Amino acid sequence: MLKGNAIVGQSGGPTAAINATLAGVIKGAFDSEVIDVLYGAFNGIEGILKRTVCVLNDVVKSEEDLDALASTPAAALGSCRKKLPDPDSGDEVYEILFEFFKERNIRYFFYIGGNDSMDTVAKLTKYALKTDYEIRVMGVPKTIDNDVAGTDHTPGFGSAAKYIAASMQEIIRDTAVYKVKAVTIVEIMGRDAGWLTAAAGLTGLFTDVKPDLIYLPEVPFDYEKYFEDVAAAFEDHPNVVVAISEGARLADGTYLGASAQSGVTDVFGHAYLSGTGKALEIATKERLGCKVRSVELNILQRCASHIASDTDIKESLMIGSAAVDAAVGGTTGKMMVFERVSDDPYEVRPASEDIDKIANIVREVPRWFINGRGNNVTEECLRYIAPLIEGERAIKYKNGLPEHFVIKN
Amino acid sequence: MLKGNAIVGQSGGPTAAINATLAGVIKGAFDSEVIDVLYGAFNGIEGILKRTVCVLNDVVKSEEDLDALASTPAAALGSCRKKLPDPDSGDEVYEILFEFFKERNIRYFFYIGGNDSMDTVAKLTKYALKTDYEIRVMGVPKTIDNDVAGTDHTPGFGSAAKYIAASMQEIIRDTAVYKVKAVTIVEIMGRDAGWLTAAAGLTGLFTDVKPDLIYLPEVPFDYEKYFEDVAAAFEDHPNVVVAISEGARLADGTYLGASAQSGVTDVFGHAYLSGTGKALEIATKERLGCKVRSVELNILQRCASHIASDTDIKESLMIGSAAVDAAVGGTTGKMMVFERVSDDPYEVRPASEDIDKIANIVREVPRWFINGRGNNVTEECLRYIAPLIEGERAIKYKNGLPEHFVIKN
Repeated sequence: MLKGNAIVGQSGGPTAAINATLAGVIKGAFDSEVIDVLYGAFNGIEGILKRTVCVLNDVVKSEEDLDALASTPAAALGSCRKKLPDPDSGDEVYEILFEFFKERNIRYFFYIGGNDSMDTVAKLTKYALKTDYEIRVMGVPKTIDNDVAGTDHTPGFGSAAKYIAASMQEIIRDTAVYKVKAVTIVEIMGRDAGWLTAAAGLTGLFTDVKPDLIYLPEVPFDYEKYFEDVAAAFEDHPNVVVAISEGARLADGTYLGASAQSGVTDVFGHAYLSGTGKALEIATKERLGCKVRSVELNILQRCASHIASDTDIKESLMIGSAAVDAAVGGTTGKMMVFERVSDDPYEVRPASEDIDKIANIVREVPRWFINGRGNNVTEECLRYIAPLIEGERAIKYKNGLPEHFVIKN
Repeated sequence: MLKGNAIVGQSGGPTAAINATLAGVIKGAFDSEVIDVLYGAFNGIEGILKRTVCVLNDVVKSEEDLDALASTPAAALGSCRKKLPDPDSGDEVYEILFEFFKERNIRYFFYIGGNDSMDTVAKLTKYALKTDYEIRVMGVPKTIDNDVAGTDHTPGFGSAAKYIAASMQEIIRDTAVYKVKAVTIVEIMGRDAGWLTAAAGLTGLFTDVKPDLIYLPEVPFDYEKYFEDVAAAFEDHPNVVVAISEGARLADGTYLGASAQSGVTDVFGHAYLSGTGKALEIATKERLGCKVRSVELNILQRCASHIASDTDIKESLMIGSAAVDAAVGGTTGKMMVFERVSDDPYEVRPASEDIDKIANIVREVPRWFINGRGNNVTEECLRYIAPLIEGERAIKYKNGLPEHFVIKN
């Protein structure tokens, strides 16, 4: 048994479930007999470098606090996008980190984040192997994008998918009130993988309405085929609704979004996107001359915790606790994943995977989840997503607004 | 007692509460001893002209149906934007309408709609006075914009305000996770009145977060003052959040939104707006060079019934029934309004007002509800809005999605 203290941090873009995973880690650590103090690092790895940390044992006092934290959007500890240098580079950043670990007797490091954050976990693990200080490093995935390899799905995806599907149902009803020919384009997040956009189709599985057309980044977008698709949809009804991924691109790889062509990239080299829906709106208006509107669901997709999926939140809590259990049990340098044990009834169990097999790999929507023409998803795809949006949280409201749990920095 | 049948229609843009008002009219008519059949006109007045109507007695069968209808967004009967000609013009449209009324013995006409729809109510009333056919015509307001004169507030506003305030809280938490200097601009609906944008400030009354700056159409927007405001906000924290009305305009009256300058107008001559947030995003990025994002809440503001205000829905039901009671009691040519009887405890009662005093008047946010510098709203303003977002509906979910009540055309 490795006794000592632990630290947890959050990294990458916020989700509606990342705090549920944090709550899971907290519960796991509080319940563990080998972990004494659980520190929270503000703004991920940056908080360790700058020594801005808190003692979570003093912050989270009750099951009620844990429950409130689990229903709070964004990252309660703050986030960062810091990329660590190569562990063999001799960069002093590792010395600063490990000095802190030794000083506070930190033996467990939990990092809740997306693809890029697992890179940090892998590097820390590699560096740790070169020192004589024993520390177990575990990654817990979170991303609304669901594009992480090695797991059935990612914590955070289910809540975003639920928000998207519920909003899509509302938008379709809204657009249907007039009998005037109109196209409504809904732009959904997803730079390289179309999972979130696919979720827009869930309404078709369970309600009387559905988007007419769904375009994912996995299939090259073709304007002429698209105009044919819209014309075909108009044969059926006057209000055509299109769901399109922000990452939709043409056969030559250029993104539809105009600003994508500016060449601006983020710190990890990803192209900065916006305006895919707007670009399609302009093109559609120009070609068809009818009323066209574009709606960008934008960051509410990742932070609308008021309609979080109860399945997602419960699983996020579970995977956070399971990460602690795995680390205490001797696992290190791994990322927690979900294995789907059964579809009917839906059942998942947590497991751990080698980071090397996962980091920097984008899990796309497989081609057999997309229809032949590339303008919709298959029922199999929707059946895969459907259980992840099941259930609603009993959100506490005060004065008409959801109550959130705040960790003061 | 005027015995006979009744008809109800919906008109103008959808809201999350317009079906609750419809449910109220249905309940009022079903409970009334003088109304036999209640017809529903599909797509408002157009449904009467085209004879596309349904018998609501056959569609809504139980209290459960009424409840589901009240929680369904958009207009269950469909909507229209048809403007009637002058009743003295001799246009045959009135003959067609009254022929239908006589044929079906329709003695009560209920029209649920916004400012423009009340124009229809006024014209029908005027025409009816010229004929020997007795029919009572009542308008029931709905608009998320809250810009109707003669009423404390409009049905539909509370739900939109709740969605905006809840989303604003989530957006602010989302933007706060990074310690990088950034401006987030949230564009909120409201062409001529800033009520919805004002609602963004409600988080400041009840939570630890609030938008830093709030700009309404009622005060001319000044870019230089705005940049000063943002600079001042940056003194306090790195993530500045701005709420701005789609109708924000410069001192010379031009809208910030680029597309507003295209001169495109809708059928009532209103300028067609979009892109206010985008225009401000571009200007801010250019001037400050920091990370800037704009979020347009878009049509979800008016259709997100999953987070409807229970106060709004209950009041909408009430005002719908009250319209029937008033008409049966002899009232005609009037619009239903809310009178606020008391602030603490909050209490409203339905009443009726002359259409002439109301139609085509835009009720703006009064200057004393806006702070001196014109970059925020006063606490008095927020206290006026606050009771309208109170309470949550017990929304029924199935397969993870809200259940809606559909009236098939």
